[in-house]
Amino acid sequence: EETNPSQLHTSEHLSTAQQLVWIFFAWQVGKARKKYKISPPAVIGSPAFERVFRAQQNCLEFYPIFLVTFWMAGWFFNQVLAVLLGLAYMYARHKYFLGYSESAKERLTGFQMSLGVLALLVIQAIVGIANDFLDEYMDLNIFKKLHQWF
Amino acid sequence: EETNPSQLHTSEHLSTAQQLVWIFFAWQVGKARKKYKISPPAVIGSPAFERVFRAQQNCLEFYPIFLVTFWMAGWFFNQVLAVLLGLAYMYARHKYFLGYSESAKERLTGFQMSLGVLALLVIQAIVGIANDFLDEYMDLNIFKKLHQWF
Amino acid sequence: EETNPSQLHTSEHLSTAQQLVWIFFAWQVGKARKKYKISPPAVIGSPAFERVFRAQQNCLEFYPIFLVTFWMAGWFFNQVLAVLLGLAYMYARHKYFLGYSESAKERLTGFQMSLGVLALLVIQAIVGIANDFLDEYMDLNIFKKLHQWF
Repeated sequence: EETNPSQLHTSEHLSTAQQLVWIFFAWQVGKARKKYKISPPAVIGSPAFERVFRAQQNCLEFYPIFLVTFWMAGWFFNQVLAVLLGLAYMYARHKYFLGYSESAKERLTGFQMSLGVLALLVIQAIVGIANDFLDEYMDLNIFKKLHQWF
Repeated sequence: EETNPSQLHTSEHLSTAQQLVWIFFAWQVGKARKKYKISPPAVIGSPAFERVFRAQQNCLEFYPIFLVTFWMAGWFFNQVLAVLLGLAYMYARHKYFLGYSESAKERLTGFQMSLGVLALLVIQAIVGIANDFLDEYMDLNIFKKLHQWF
Repeated sequence: EETNPSQLHTSEHLSTAQQLVWIFFAWQVGKARKKYKISPPAVIGSPAFERVFRAQQNCLEFYPIFLVTFWMAGWFFNQVLAVLLGLAYMYARHKYFLGYSESAKERLTGFQMSLGVLALLVIQAIVGIANDFLDEYMDLNIFKKLHQWF
């Protein structure tokens, strides 16, 4: 794949912006603790607090999975596509978090969007890595071949 | 340490395969929610669901610890050894997850295996990094020395 | 930014040391399970156990956020500063964990310290990345400019 130096660190740059979103979610959980009077270390006792808490937990549970897939897609497939999908993922997770804070049902749209985006990133990462393998061991670069044919 | 270009990204490649395992675990939790009728955001109420949920949570709690250690072992010690241990870790975690889903007791074998593999990776990472330090500051590369002596 | 080869991997090296702290916390949770007789998969039932468990969970929830910010600060701003803040973060988290194990109130000092350190790392990462962008697209390197002026 062709790499443009100016795109080299774009996925790393975006990862920093994402930290701010996770810190925002953590701060929302702190606010919900006060609002619904759930003192640490308790995490149950109010369904409204539990929704905010599970929303944050689910985002964090998926974060390492997302992050590794996102970086692999950027490194081995295409930085620009990965960054666009990374932005879409942040939007989906934001929608999911705000939806879940309202009701369990309203979490679904954002969640399904985030899974769809993640699936696309997984496909990109696998295709990119498969291409890397074929290039390495069989001297066959599919991306270059496609470029020649079209 | 000698690096063979074709091994350069092996630990990163394996990391992508691992994502599929974590996504499988997340999907199993979703199935268990339906089977044992635990609606979000609740995470307690059925011991069988709680086991599946804790199994997934424990895998995710250890994932960043595993991932960083795994990459360090691969970068500073040896890619091939790290990848073999990475595969062993995935096997142990799979065994742990399926065991825990059956009963709390059946989680133990897989868990102990996973800790043993993690301990080996930690040792590799520490030895590799110590060698890197000695090489850098005291011009003493233990790996090369050992290679000369044997 | 000027990079000294011997500093190149310092933030990665420190990341390995941090694994040992997380493994220590996980081991403390196992000990607390036995002490307060909370059998897996249960995670509630004893406030003392819940405090130890939440302390570990909170450290792990923040770990990917911390790790990415820490690496970005090291790569794009300054390795030495990032490593000093990384050590401060480990101290703060250790204080938080031991405090929380005693009482919910005693977690606060360590927690606020850890947030302060994290805020400094976020600022470093953002400044470093902003400088990288300006350097890339507008040929303006603020770090070098500052170096010339002072």
